[in-house]
Parts: sequence; structure tokens; C-alpha cells
Amino acid sequence: MTPRVLLPWSDLTVPDGLETACYDGTGTPPALDGVEFYVLPYDSGPEPPKLIAKMPSLKAVQSLSAGVDSLLPLIPDGVTLANGRGLHDLSVAEHTLALILAAQRNLPRWFRQQGTGSWDREHTRSLADERVLLVGYGSIGKAIERYLVAGEADVVRVASTAREGVHGIDELPELLPSADMLMLILPDTPATRGLIGAPELAALPDGALVVNVGRGTAIDTEALTKEVVAGRLRAALDVVDPEPLPSDHPLWRAPGAIITPHVAGGSDSFYPRAKRLVEQQLQRFARGQPLVNVVR
Amino acid sequence: MTPRVLLPWSDLTVPDGLETACYDGTGTPPALDGVEFYVLPYDSGPEPPKLIAKMPSLKAVQSLSAGVDSLLPLIPDGVTLANGRGLHDLSVAEHTLALILAAQRNLPRWFRQQGTGSWDREHTRSLADERVLLVGYGSIGKAIERYLVAGEADVVRVASTAREGVHGIDELPELLPSADMLMLILPDTPATRGLIGAPELAALPDGALVVNVGRGTAIDTEALTKEVVAGRLRAALDVVDPEPLPSDHPLWRAPGAIITPHVAGGSDSFYPRAKRLVEQQLQRFARGQPLVNVVR
Repeated sequence: MTPRVLLPWSDLTVPDGLETACYDGTGTPPALDGVEFYVLPYDSGPEPPKLIAKMPSLKAVQSLSAGVDSLLPLIPDGVTLANGRGLHDLSVAEHTLALILAAQRNLPRWFRQQGTGSWDREHTRSLADERVLLVGYGSIGKAIERYLVAGEADVVRVASTAREGVHGIDELPELLPSADMLMLILPDTPATRGLIGAPELAALPDGALVVNVGRGTAIDTEALTKEVVAGRLRAALDVVDPEPLPSDHPLWRAPGAIITPHVAGGSDSFYPRAKRLVEQQLQRFARGQPLVNVVR
Repeated sequence: MTPRVLLPWSDLTVPDGLETACYDGTGTPPALDGVEFYVLPYDSGPEPPKLIAKMPSLKAVQSLSAGVDSLLPLIPDGVTLANGRGLHDLSVAEHTLALILAAQRNLPRWFRQQGTGSWDREHTRSLADERVLLVGYGSIGKAIERYLVAGEADVVRVASTAREGVHGIDELPELLPSADMLMLILPDTPATRGLIGAPELAALPDGALVVNVGRGTAIDTEALTKEVVAGRLRAALDVVDPEPLPSDHPLWRAPGAIITPHVAGGSDSFYPRAKRLVEQQLQRFARGQPLVNVVR
């Protein structure tokens, strides 16, 4: 019997010898018997993963997310799980730049003024020459760094363990007082939870910008809110703790705060990269080669 | 007699053998006799240039602007005029990125939502993979390009004359139909005035973003307004024609328009670069070496 692959898109280049069916997460799924390779539709809620249990021939599941912890219990023994590591890097980096440039170049002010047709002008801050503590030096951190280098910012790399050219997270207390921006790109783990609390924020100089595009739990939201509402620190956040941030939370309307609702990863740059990954994985699958991005 | 230099800042490193005085464009200027080198205060209105006529010993004038056409008639014969070419490049590039990322990543929407504390989410456009026609490939264009390359955009260079890797402006008609962004970084000259009119805008695909950070006169404002108000094109503009844009002009409130009031050059990145240039020029002046950035 021809191996079947279940894909969220119908416009992929698929190797000969594979029979494809399409399921984008909406409507009734096609027949599931004979499906050996299942590419989960992206960000489509709890239904698509439930189909895994109904695929007796399944050999591999491809997720398009980087984090797959909630999927693991659903993957039968002997089935390979691959994730979407890297697919969101550039989208997150882009949104991060949008946030920090908006903060430095005062975009909220100009957008407000636009509503009244006012030509009032003002000198702004800049990104150039700013000392940016880049905390979390994985693939997203590196994509952000390429932008920061183009903009002549002064990048200071920080990761969980020190290595050549990268400070260890334990050096943070000495690094905070000279930072113009503290940028967090950290996953949610026991080690990162609450990493930035009142003492760390207090160590930042007046006017510093706190940026979070990793997971909201890395920052003590109440401590940050206090500093931003007081006008001592500024914030540019795509993630917060909790999410959604309650609509009456004072951080929403603090003057130096920019908040977007966890949208850094969701942009057009994702789909071409996701499709390229899936096409490459199908080639490997058809040839019996090991997949990449394998989680287990 | 010791040569005197008149500077807008009092914190520069000045070579031995030069006597300095400070004039930042406000208040009463110091004595002007004996002033041989005059650094004009930046963006300080018409008064500072008038002092040039009162400096009998003057040898050189340093402007901190790139465009010095209005100064030329005030410079006596035999006096050198140097400009601020390059000092604003990075500031303009940064603001350009802020504008296009704001447009692609829907920042106006998120900022409006922030006012109501709403967590509504939406997939956005991206900068990655977008085909950007970079029209005007001077030092600002190159600074923008470094950012665009970091963001994996597809840059198509266009300048007044074709050369290796750069299209000529006469190729614009063939290039417009495949452009996701048309980015103009052009000075105001007879050749650039009205370069982008109704036919050029009509050649752009639906949803394309028109970006202007050079001079407003390069675009026919009414033709652009028609396309943006109709929702066919989007716009991100730091310069318009005329400036200020009248407060009741329909472009201000067109849904796909982002407008800032000609502030791309005015940010903190300017001053450190301006001070470095002036310090280097003073070294050259003290040693009798030719200045750089000489206009005449």
C-alpha cells in the first residue's frame, strides 16, 4: 500500500511514491487509515492532535511549533515526533525590532498625533550606541543580534552558561547597571521563572527599556508594573504573566509601556519557512532518511 | 594671536593651540573677532548663519546638516564650507525600519488595542521575503540595506544611473509591478520632483507599501492619497509635500497610512557622530590639513 501523508496545505512539492491528503484543522478530516506521516496544522486548537490516536499506521508526527511538551503524551511508542524549531525565529526577531524601535523612536506619540493631524516635532532616542543585554542567546537571540549589529547597537550576550563571547546568567547583577535595554528571550523553565524581580529591575539605570519576547514568567509583572507606572523604567512586551493580561491591569496604560498580545511569532515569514521544512522532511521520509528537528 | 573656534558644545576634545568659545544658538553670542573656525549649531533657525558676516578672520564653516544650499550665499569668498554628510544616515535608517516594521507588524492596531486592554490577536505581514525597491542608493540607502539584509528582505537597488548590482531609475516601470515596498530616499532635485505620480503608483501591486524618508516632493501627494484612501496601497511617510501636511488633509487619517513629522534624522544617534566629526575636523584644522566633507 502507498504510504499516506496528511498535510495542512495542498500546494507542496511531494516526492513520488507518497499519497497525500489535506487537513488544515477545520471541517471533517479525511480517512486516517494508512496515514504514516502527519503534519499538524499550525495553531489550530486541541482537535488535530486528537487524531493521532486514530492513525494505526503512523510513523512520524511533524509539529510546526517549537514547544511540543503538551503533544508528547499523545505520541504512541515508536512514533517519531519532530518540532518546528527555527521556523519562528525571524518573525520573532522582526517583531522585537518593531517593539524596540517603536519605543526608541516614539512611535506611540506620532501615531497619537496623526489622529489630530499635528506636525509637532521632537528629538527622540535612538537604537544606535545603546547597550543591549541580550539574555537568551539561542537561534532567536542570534536573529535579533543580526538586526542590532546592523543598527550599531552595543550588544552584550548573556546565556545560561558562560562561553567565549557570551556572559553567564550569574553575571547579570554586574551587567544590569550599565544596560540601556534588558532584552529577554527565554523559555519558561524552573530556572527562568521570576528571574527578573524587583532587585534586578532596581539595578537598571533610569529610563532603561525592559523587553520581553520569550515567556512572560521570566519577569515579576507586579515589580515591573511598579517601576513603569512610576516612570523610572520603560517596557516593550509581547509576552506577559498572566496571558491575557487582565484588561484593567495598570501596565496596559502606563505611559512608558508598549504591549502586544503575544503575536511576535505569527507573521507571513513563518509559512514559507514552514513549507520548506515540511517539503524537506517529506523527501527524507520518502528516502527512509532520518528526519531533522526530532524531539523523540 | 591664538586661532579661535566657535563650537556649539563645550565638552569636545580640542587640540592644543586653539582657543574655544561656545555658542549653541541661544542667547547672546560671544565676541566674534578672531574666530577662524565656526561650527554652526544644529537646527537652530536663521540667526546662527547670520553671524558669519561678522567674523572677519573666518577661514572655515562646519555645518552639521547634509543639505547646505541655503548657506552657500552667506559664505564669503575664500572661506571653506564643510557639511554634515553621513551624520544622519543611521538615524534615518533606524526610523525607516521603525516605519516599515510598524506597517508590516500592525503596530497601530496593537497600540489602539492597548488603550482598551484587549488581547485580540491576529496574524500579520512580515518584512522577511518582501521585495523592497530601494530607490536612492547613497549612504542612507546603504544603512537601510544593512537592516533589510539582516531581516532577509529581498532588496532591489535603484539609483539615478545603473551600475553593477544597481538598476537605473529608467528601469522603474519594469520593476514596480513586482515590488512589495517602494522605498524612496531621494533629495529634492528637478530630476526627482514628481518622480512617483499616478501611473507609477498604479503599476504597484495591491497592498504594496510606499515609503518615503527622502524628500516629500518625490511623490505626487494627491495621487498617493487617492490610492491609500481607496485602500489599494499603504503608505509609511516621514516626509510629505507640503510640510507641514495640513491638519485636515485626508492622508492623515487614511487607514493604511503611517505619518511622522519629518523626524527621521533627529535622534540621539546624531550627536555622538556629530561630535566625533567636529573633533576630527578640529585636529585637521590645527595641523593645517584639508577638512573632510568640503562643499566648497
